[in-house]
Amino acid sequence: MRIFISGPSGVGKSTIITEVLKHNPDFVLSISYTTRPPRPREVDGKDYFFTTHEVFEEMKGRNEFLEWARVHGNLYGTSLSWMEKRERQGRHILLDIDVQGVRQAQQKDSPGVYIFILPPSIEELARRLARRGTEDDESFRIRLKNAKSELKSWDIYDYLVVNDDVARTVQDVQSIVSASRCSRTEIIERIPWLREIE
Amino acid sequence: MRIFISGPSGVGKSTIITEVLKHNPDFVLSISYTTRPPRPREVDGKDYFFTTHEVFEEMKGRNEFLEWARVHGNLYGTSLSWMEKRERQGRHILLDIDVQGVRQAQQKDSPGVYIFILPPSIEELARRLARRGTEDDESFRIRLKNAKSELKSWDIYDYLVVNDDVARTVQDVQSIVSASRCSRTEIIERIPWLREIE
Repeated sequence: MRIFISGPSGVGKSTIITEVLKHNPDFVLSISYTTRPPRPREVDGKDYFFTTHEVFEEMKGRNEFLEWARVHGNLYGTSLSWMEKRERQGRHILLDIDVQGVRQAQQKDSPGVYIFILPPSIEELARRLARRGTEDDESFRIRLKNAKSELKSWDIYDYLVVNDDVARTVQDVQSIVSASRCSRTEIIERIPWLREIE
Repeated sequence: MRIFISGPSGVGKSTIITEVLKHNPDFVLSISYTTRPPRPREVDGKDYFFTTHEVFEEMKGRNEFLEWARVHGNLYGTSLSWMEKRERQGRHILLDIDVQGVRQAQQKDSPGVYIFILPPSIEELARRLARRGTEDDESFRIRLKNAKSELKSWDIYDYLVVNDDVARTVQDVQSIVSASRCSRTEIIERIPWLREIE
C-alpha cells in the first residue's frame, strides 16, 4: 500500500509524518534519489540516495522514477524499483511528496491513497510562514504564492485534512491509514477463501 | 454522508452497528418502510415505518425508494426523502442493508461508503449459524447457502472487515467512519475558502 502525503510549506507535514510512522511500524518512508550534494549530517540511504546527474538520467531513461522533479538545478526522484522491493518484503510505503509528484504518480496510475494536509486558513498559513522569520519579504511572498498555487490542486486528493490541531490531525491521518488497510483492493489478498466460495 | 453496512446473517453486524452509532452521535440508523405487521414491542417510526401495500406501491411509483425488496411476501424499502430530510438537518445516515439493497443503491448512484462485514471463515460462519440452534437442518442449510451467495458479492464494496474479534472490528469500522469524514467530497463543503483561492 502506498500513502501519499502532500501539503504546502509551513503546514506541519513533517511532524504528522513522524507520528504516523511511529504508529505504523510496517510502513517505511520513501527515500528519494537526488543529485544534490549531501549537507552536513545527511546520510546516504537514509535522508536521500545521493547520486550523479549521469546515473539519474540513466534511471530516468529506464522509466525508473514514479515521479521526478528539478529544483534549483538539482534532480530529485522516487525510485519505483526501491518501492517495489520494500513492498515485496511486506512493507507499506509512506511518501512525502509535492503536488507535481502526485500528478505524475497518478498519471502512471500508481495505486495509493492521496492525502492533502491543509492549513486552517490562508491567513494562518501566512502567519506560520512569516514566523519562520529567516527570510526577507520577497522570499516570504514567493513562498506564500507557491503555497496558494499548491492548495489549488486540492481536487486531485482522496482526503483533505485540516491541521488546526496537531494531535487531532495525526488521529485523522491515522484513521485514514487504518481504514485503508480494510480497503477491498488492499485486504482481498489476505482473504483467499473469499474468492473461492462455490 | 451515507455509510452502508452489509454482512451475512450470523456475522455479528447488529452489535457492530450499535457500537458505531454510540461513537458517532451525528449518525442516525436508517429506518425502513415495511408492509409487514408490527411484532410485539416493535414501535412505528423507531423499528420500522409500518404501512400498507397500497401506500408502499404508491411510494414505489414515485421512485421514492433508494432500494426495496420483497421478503416472504412483505415489502421493505428505504425512503430517499426520509434520508434527505435527515441530511438537511445535518445528520449522517448509517444503513443496515443487504447485498441486493446495495446493488440498487449503487445503480441509483447513491454517494456513500460501502462496508461488508465478513466472518473469519466459512466454517466459523457455519458454526455461528448452527449455534443459533432454533432451526432444523434444512433451515440451517438454506441460511448457510444464502450467506455464501451473499459473500460472493464482496467486490461491490469499498471496504471488507473480517469480524474475528468484535472490539477490533468495531475499531476498524470506526476508522472507516472517521476517515470518511475527511474524504474530499465530504469535507470540501466545510472548507469554502479552499475553492476561492486566487
